[in-house]
Amino acid sequence: MNWKGLKTGERTVLDHVFWASGISRDALAAAASFSKTRANAAVAELLEQGLLEQTGEQVPTGGRRADTLRLSRSLGVLIGVAVGATGLEVGILSPDLAVMAHHSEPADVHDGPGPVLSRIRVLMHELLARCGVAPRQVIGIGIGLPGPVDFDSGQLVSPPLMPLWDGYSIRDDLAADFSAPVFVDNDVNVMALGELWRMQRSLPNFLVVKVGTGVGCGIVCQGQVYRGANGSAGDVGHICVVPDGPRCHCGNLGCVETLAAGPAIARMRTEAAQAGQSPLLARMLAERGPLRLQDVAEASRAGDMAANQVVQRSGALVGQMLASVVNFFNPSHVFIGGGVTRVGPLFLAAVRQSVYHRSLALSTRHLEIQYTPLGERAGLIGAGVLAMQESLRQMELA
Amino acid sequence: MNWKGLKTGERTVLDHVFWASGISRDALAAAASFSKTRANAAVAELLEQGLLEQTGEQVPTGGRRADTLRLSRSLGVLIGVAVGATGLEVGILSPDLAVMAHHSEPADVHDGPGPVLSRIRVLMHELLARCGVAPRQVIGIGIGLPGPVDFDSGQLVSPPLMPLWDGYSIRDDLAADFSAPVFVDNDVNVMALGELWRMQRSLPNFLVVKVGTGVGCGIVCQGQVYRGANGSAGDVGHICVVPDGPRCHCGNLGCVETLAAGPAIARMRTEAAQAGQSPLLARMLAERGPLRLQDVAEASRAGDMAANQVVQRSGALVGQMLASVVNFFNPSHVFIGGGVTRVGPLFLAAVRQSVYHRSLALSTRHLEIQYTPLGERAGLIGAGVLAMQESLRQMELA
Repeated sequence: MNWKGLKTGERTVLDHVFWASGISRDALAAAASFSKTRANAAVAELLEQGLLEQTGEQVPTGGRRADTLRLSRSLGVLIGVAVGATGLEVGILSPDLAVMAHHSEPADVHDGPGPVLSRIRVLMHELLARCGVAPRQVIGIGIGLPGPVDFDSGQLVSPPLMPLWDGYSIRDDLAADFSAPVFVDNDVNVMALGELWRMQRSLPNFLVVKVGTGVGCGIVCQGQVYRGANGSAGDVGHICVVPDGPRCHCGNLGCVETLAAGPAIARMRTEAAQAGQSPLLARMLAERGPLRLQDVAEASRAGDMAANQVVQRSGALVGQMLASVVNFFNPSHVFIGGGVTRVGPLFLAAVRQSVYHRSLALSTRHLEIQYTPLGERAGLIGAGVLAMQESLRQMELA
Repeated sequence: MNWKGLKTGERTVLDHVFWASGISRDALAAAASFSKTRANAAVAELLEQGLLEQTGEQVPTGGRRADTLRLSRSLGVLIGVAVGATGLEVGILSPDLAVMAHHSEPADVHDGPGPVLSRIRVLMHELLARCGVAPRQVIGIGIGLPGPVDFDSGQLVSPPLMPLWDGYSIRDDLAADFSAPVFVDNDVNVMALGELWRMQRSLPNFLVVKVGTGVGCGIVCQGQVYRGANGSAGDVGHICVVPDGPRCHCGNLGCVETLAAGPAIARMRTEAAQAGQSPLLARMLAERGPLRLQDVAEASRAGDMAANQVVQRSGALVGQMLASVVNFFNPSHVFIGGGVTRVGPLFLAAVRQSVYHRSLALSTRHLEIQYTPLGERAGLIGAGVLAMQESLRQMELA
């Protein structure tokens, strides 16, 4: 990268422009706690080097000068990777997080890091070629994975959904192809980072809850992603919601993940179909085999009673878990993402009802619960934010 | 106060010396990210003004100069107040938090702010006189109260244990007697602040759980007390632990507070005594009337089986609530304080067993659960820390 040898103040300016693309010079100076003179000097240097660009209207004569700023595309590109339990997405993003090219496909993380990362490397090269960008122009690579990650080493630690990845060095694997730094984090932390960027850090305390194959939570506390003492903060899937409930793969009884996540929803619907409670689900079962979350979502949106019952029960249990978390953490917003969002408003309504019923008035007085504003893009955008934020943090200064 | 007109760098030095009394000049420069020249200049100015003192050995000739620093007692004194549901404590503390005088006595917060604050004002004046200090020498006043506090206004918001205090201005009440600034916070947040000071901010992510008349939690996240979006973070007393349990005063079923806090423990023991399950408790009941938490603690320490059963059940339920919180927050330490600590090691053992049984391996691999190191002093010391920290933050700079 061509930004080696920058000064501290210049890095600070790049960081603020990254988090608030289109920021004015005055707002930039205020955000960085710089005098206007200092901010203007750093901006002038960065414009000179081609690392920043001016946007805004340029009036030919007598008008005010263009004064909004964004990162220059000549900085290079970011690669974002979002790996889920059953699929992966790779994208090439500009420094201001426009998606230049992306590709998603089914994948099975149970296959282990070898085959999955090989495929990801192939996709990275294909997508870079499609954008006409060379590997040496990559600023940084951000990867979100569905398991507990030790952030400093970039390795998964005893991941229940993907045991073959335990302690595998993703960084070493990618180092042969790319000299850019590689940053790895839990998938829900990455989604939370994406939402934090989308709202330009305007909400300091919120949660992102992903309900898909598992249940996990990303925590933004005092304006930063909070990872906990050992990197496992947000591991809410094994919070107990039914003390004498069925045994979870973790060994305990009645975990919310085993009762309310995607596989539980699909299993309950398959049982309902087999028991003859829903002609629609029975037809789907006959045509497509064991029902998946998206089949149930389709049936629920079509008004199928049995599907709706399971969706409501799942939402109520996720809400019961969230009520504990909301009493403890008092966030301003809870954003729900993951495969379950395809079910539509019924799931969200059930979550809300359960949380508002169980949480203290003070915690919920201004609490908003909604689906993630970035939707299915949250993982990819968040991986891009991770790549850019950490690359800026690591850059070599003069 | 005689510190008006300090520069930003001098305030930063005072702040670092406050958080690490006895710090060396080199460590101070490192902690403040100052050059040694800048740190030494600020220290020299503060020594000159008498706001800092050198401690360390002074070797007459040829030795190294005294280089450890602490706040000077000529700065003035702090007043700390810790109000509980059934008692209050007032103390005069030096700037480095040595307790110069203190007094505690029973009090009933249900009586409302008028009588309780009148009594606190009387005690403040008595204790100041005992120390030979005038009211104008008070740097700041810190107060911990058992309810949700809006930190900026210093007022309680719909406090369930003390409804008459809702929205009452404690600041205005004390302004007639003291010109020093008054800072009010929830009692458990204040205890957490005290523990943070005791360990010189060396642990960034930990919890303090108070089990007394109620159950509450103070949260330290990324090195700071975290109060949540509306100031109600840590309100864990109404987390559900028995979904079909008895109705709590909050309206919901099976809250941990209604099943496991001090009044529940005392009530269960009274019932055990009446049912003839414990000769010791029956004798206490006959002699002393309805059993209080300390009676049960005494019986438990004496090995009474019925008392021990209730203590274990209470610890297990608090542990069940904590398991959810630990999965979500992944703290490095949980410190337990409040009246229940008088019960001794049995309660703590029951909490630990329950948390380790229910939490994920990664969250608990290095988790330590113990009683608050500051013990019964946590509230008073914490109130002193609150007073000093916030007074430093508010001081008028040159």
